[in-house]
Amino acid sequence: MKKHTYLVLGLLGFAALLTSCGNGNQGKGSSGALNSSNAEKVYVAPGEHDEFYAFMSGGYSGNLTVYGLPSGRMFKEIPVFSQFATSGYGYSEETKPMLNTSFGFVPWDDSHHPDISQTNGELDGRWIFINGNNTPRIARISLTTFETEEIIEVPNSAGNHSSSFITENTEYVVAGTRFSVPVPQADMPIKEYKGNFKGALSFISVDPEHGHMDIKFQILMPGFNYDLSHPGRGKSHGWFFFTTYNTEEANSLLEVNASQNDKDFIAAINWKKIEEYVNNGGGTKMPANYAHNVYDEHTHTATSVMRKEVLTVDPTKIPGAVFFLPTPKSPHGCDVDPSGEYIIGNGKLSADLTVHSFDKMIAAIEGKKFDGEAYGIPILKFEDVLAGTVKSGGLGPLHTEFDGEGNAYTTFFISSEVVMWKLGTWEVIDRKPTYYSVGHLMIPGGNSRKPFGKYVVAMNKITKDRYLPTGPELEHSAQLYDISGDKMELIYDFPTHGEPHYAAGIPAELLAPKSQKIYKLAENKHPYATLSPADARVVRDGKDVHIYMSTIRSHFTPDNIEGVKVGDKVYFHITNQEQDFDVPHGFAVIGANTSELLVMPGQTKTIIWEPKQVGVWPFYCTDFCSALHQEMQGYVRVSPADSNLELSWSLGE
Amino acid sequence: MKKHTYLVLGLLGFAALLTSCGNGNQGKGSSGALNSSNAEKVYVAPGEHDEFYAFMSGGYSGNLTVYGLPSGRMFKEIPVFSQFATSGYGYSEETKPMLNTSFGFVPWDDSHHPDISQTNGELDGRWIFINGNNTPRIARISLTTFETEEIIEVPNSAGNHSSSFITENTEYVVAGTRFSVPVPQADMPIKEYKGNFKGALSFISVDPEHGHMDIKFQILMPGFNYDLSHPGRGKSHGWFFFTTYNTEEANSLLEVNASQNDKDFIAAINWKKIEEYVNNGGGTKMPANYAHNVYDEHTHTATSVMRKEVLTVDPTKIPGAVFFLPTPKSPHGCDVDPSGEYIIGNGKLSADLTVHSFDKMIAAIEGKKFDGEAYGIPILKFEDVLAGTVKSGGLGPLHTEFDGEGNAYTTFFISSEVVMWKLGTWEVIDRKPTYYSVGHLMIPGGNSRKPFGKYVVAMNKITKDRYLPTGPELEHSAQLYDISGDKMELIYDFPTHGEPHYAAGIPAELLAPKSQKIYKLAENKHPYATLSPADARVVRDGKDVHIYMSTIRSHFTPDNIEGVKVGDKVYFHITNQEQDFDVPHGFAVIGANTSELLVMPGQTKTIIWEPKQVGVWPFYCTDFCSALHQEMQGYVRVSPADSNLELSWSLGE
Repeated sequence: MKKHTYLVLGLLGFAALLTSCGNGNQGKGSSGALNSSNAEKVYVAPGEHDEFYAFMSGGYSGNLTVYGLPSGRMFKEIPVFSQFATSGYGYSEETKPMLNTSFGFVPWDDSHHPDISQTNGELDGRWIFINGNNTPRIARISLTTFETEEIIEVPNSAGNHSSSFITENTEYVVAGTRFSVPVPQADMPIKEYKGNFKGALSFISVDPEHGHMDIKFQILMPGFNYDLSHPGRGKSHGWFFFTTYNTEEANSLLEVNASQNDKDFIAAINWKKIEEYVNNGGGTKMPANYAHNVYDEHTHTATSVMRKEVLTVDPTKIPGAVFFLPTPKSPHGCDVDPSGEYIIGNGKLSADLTVHSFDKMIAAIEGKKFDGEAYGIPILKFEDVLAGTVKSGGLGPLHTEFDGEGNAYTTFFISSEVVMWKLGTWEVIDRKPTYYSVGHLMIPGGNSRKPFGKYVVAMNKITKDRYLPTGPELEHSAQLYDISGDKMELIYDFPTHGEPHYAAGIPAELLAPKSQKIYKLAENKHPYATLSPADARVVRDGKDVHIYMSTIRSHFTPDNIEGVKVGDKVYFHITNQEQDFDVPHGFAVIGANTSELLVMPGQTKTIIWEPKQVGVWPFYCTDFCSALHQEMQGYVRVSPADSNLELSWSLGE
Repeated sequence: MKKHTYLVLGLLGFAALLTSCGNGNQGKGSSGALNSSNAEKVYVAPGEHDEFYAFMSGGYSGNLTVYGLPSGRMFKEIPVFSQFATSGYGYSEETKPMLNTSFGFVPWDDSHHPDISQTNGELDGRWIFINGNNTPRIARISLTTFETEEIIEVPNSAGNHSSSFITENTEYVVAGTRFSVPVPQADMPIKEYKGNFKGALSFISVDPEHGHMDIKFQILMPGFNYDLSHPGRGKSHGWFFFTTYNTEEANSLLEVNASQNDKDFIAAINWKKIEEYVNNGGGTKMPANYAHNVYDEHTHTATSVMRKEVLTVDPTKIPGAVFFLPTPKSPHGCDVDPSGEYIIGNGKLSADLTVHSFDKMIAAIEGKKFDGEAYGIPILKFEDVLAGTVKSGGLGPLHTEFDGEGNAYTTFFISSEVVMWKLGTWEVIDRKPTYYSVGHLMIPGGNSRKPFGKYVVAMNKITKDRYLPTGPELEHSAQLYDISGDKMELIYDFPTHGEPHYAAGIPAELLAPKSQKIYKLAENKHPYATLSPADARVVRDGKDVHIYMSTIRSHFTPDNIEGVKVGDKVYFHITNQEQDFDVPHGFAVIGANTSELLVMPGQTKTIIWEPKQVGVWPFYCTDFCSALHQEMQGYVRVSPADSNLELSWSLGE
């Protein structure tokens, strides 16, 4: 049994002590020969390029950010689950459907764990997936356009945290609930949680050609909290592993009440067995209501469809499909080494790491050596599946990745450090402090069969004095370690945007050559596209006015519009005629209750403007597009609601 | 007369040629001794701090970003005019009033020109101001909290571009319209623009103690476009200078039609004279309708008040107050050197820079040597006010700043370069390419009486191949030049977030020591604050349910709530009890049609949740706040609308 509250408070105090000590080691003016060589290691000179892409989750920004390594420079913020005024995502008519859910329009989410698509367990760089925690969703982002192409809501989930992780051939993106809830939802006393709530683990199939997602099945598990997960790989391909906490099934003050059991579980799921079961007609179709939102690259438009059914599976009905591996101290990280043999459970209130053996697990299952069951699911004996214990000397282990050279790297939140250790011998090889309170870490490819073990990025949760202060609210912070030598070497600090939790990295050479530069105008199938300035026009349909507008350096066609009336709903459909790389045009009109539009070459986007007052109102290009950008403007005349003025439009007349 | 379209197209072609050539100079693998020393110049080792803050406008992001120099690292994005899901700005009940306007709630704007408050013409680091272009507004941001504290709408303006620049003692923040419009607005044919539209230049007073803004007067100028502006300083303190273009008063195809006149004007405004005039009862009160939004630091809440009147001034009624200085080729930048003697007008379709002399201008005014008038405003003779011409050899000059050592630095958009030249002799000293198409530049303090001339930052509009590609949409890009030697030296490229147009820099030592760390709980006057967990409660008021909720590591009080019904409007008022630096808590609840809240220590924030379905729904902390952050969660039970269940709440029971 854990020692409850006092232990917990003690751990927090220890953390505070370590973080305040850490600072003293790093004073101003410590530069010298070492810093000079580190400077060269992280410096990417003008005209040169970084070696790796790092994709970092935005956490509470809801988005995904793209960094270069080793420079730590942020190249892009990709809007995913949150409205993004910069480009009009979630404001434009084309992208508003992306944020539709069964709860209506939801302009935000909490994005945690990006994972890059794989083929044979190696990064293939086609897509990156990320989870929305709060209103459970999974998004798929193209790594050709670096835009969000698809979002699927996850029903019966509530805190979509043990997500979004990819199986070895991207057969599935897996999404597990963090909070258990009544399934189906029901008005019931919260205190009846225990034994009545369920945790849904969703296996979402990914179409191999287009990447389209579809919920294949949901496993309705006992009412624990499901924290993180990873696929088996190599010999353990076909299995998926989830850490659990709150196996106590407490419904209040979890800080104390979910830290009572000495061991929680790692749930081992034989998804191939379940896939076979459902392919043979197993499972129960359950009424559901969840959004499936797809952005069409030809119409540049998203559509949202409500799905009405989901296939659920009772794990106790499929012998041999699900087992529990006892794992100490409320484990958080659940990581599988490149060989697929070792499953590392990081008990977040522990000093040691627990490493389970896949081979031993299979042997124990085959030998039916169970230690009872939980809600009908067999519990394996801890000793029977244990491969080894890493006596870390640290406190609060969270997440482990691998360098492909037989080494593992684990973050420790409470003792603020990264510990490097050896797979198989479990010996600690090196440890380096982090500033401060590190959460997850990332090695490019470090959770695949083929890691690129040159750098470790630590994602820290407390920034404090690392940078010039910016008032009470600070950016989060990452630290970059060179792991190309025998030991880890801290070489750089860089701030991170939003609250990055987790990251996925990939060598630049796997993505850069196929990065798309423009949208081809000839392939633009947007129903309101203006494919040539000669097609620009204004059309009235009752109180709706559709402006088919074209942009090219440096004018809008048309740029003088009359005949709009107060009470009209004016749709500006803007098509950018440019076909050169990096020549966007923007569009804004005074008083619009939405954002501007940033329209890339060949693209069409739409905003609605509802003029409230008569007058002559300007619009203009918001992107500094040419030497005559400031001249790229126009006017709309708005007449009274009862005016008889006919629509007219012109350019240069 | 300008040569119209063909010239224009020729210039664009030239730009394309230069930009594509530029790339060839910078190949991969060009590192060596030079790069090594540049690496050391920009490297800020872990634990060390940057030397300068750089505040960059977000352009179409609507926000303001904070960078460190020389590292180029982004420390914060401060939400100003745009909703920002990361912190809940523009989504929380407390901050929604900040985005109120006479057009209703406007969730976005186009932010261009930050300027730091000054005392005696030197940076004092109290506040930074920035303009919203699209729905004309000026914002004031605290440089203690790095949060937006006030936004005032600017009536009679339409494209608030020649803004927001500060007079020498922050007497005024000045906001000039870019587009002229009917004043007051009227339903009239667009082609009647010429002679009928007006351009309003607004002088907004700044309260010296709290910084509160109030429109003192608006000058109703002829219907030109007002592009940029700067205050006089030193001997020219009391004057303000605005570049104009489209003195042709064209209303369509400005690309061609506003490039006809060989010279447009710089408008010289003697604001002290106008201030005296209005203090003596001059000017005309005009009905208006504009929002004034103020964030109260004690209640943590913004209020929006509609103002109903503005004082306008007819410049022809005040002899000696306004003059026009002819300036070639559609000038953009309008910059005043540290001594206040030189006013530099950068004709954006020109090769040369025009430098006017303040002393000569005064002499010409006193000698009444006019060259006619425009709409009753005297035009000075070009030759009488000309101090000199910089024969730059470049094309498309945009913006000039100063190093305080007698040198000026001008960006050239078309020829993609920064040119360094000497004040007084007008000789070109150095030139360095930019990659690509530079807009504005910044030297910390470089538009004040006391520049800190160590670095120049060039803000480029085209990024193309500078970084690893990220699909069709790229971040913008800055380049950093070391100007501590005799020549400029390009030392770094760094991406910039949004579309930075303009920047303001300041030495770190002027801001860092006074940066606020927490909000004191004892000073929290939020009407729905929960100042102690013992005060946490849930109160029903008809269909409104107010949850007074407290957060501290690692639980919410209360964390189990029952008695909420479908159809209720639930207000979560979250107070963060922490009083340590950098310990925010976040709050999110499933299905909310708004963002999460990021609540800093001592702060209270509110979101509304309107549950649509019965069930037991989770909420949780969105900021990784402690080792037991994952345990920081709770549930709300939602019963049917006609349920008789009474409200109840608890923690740990």
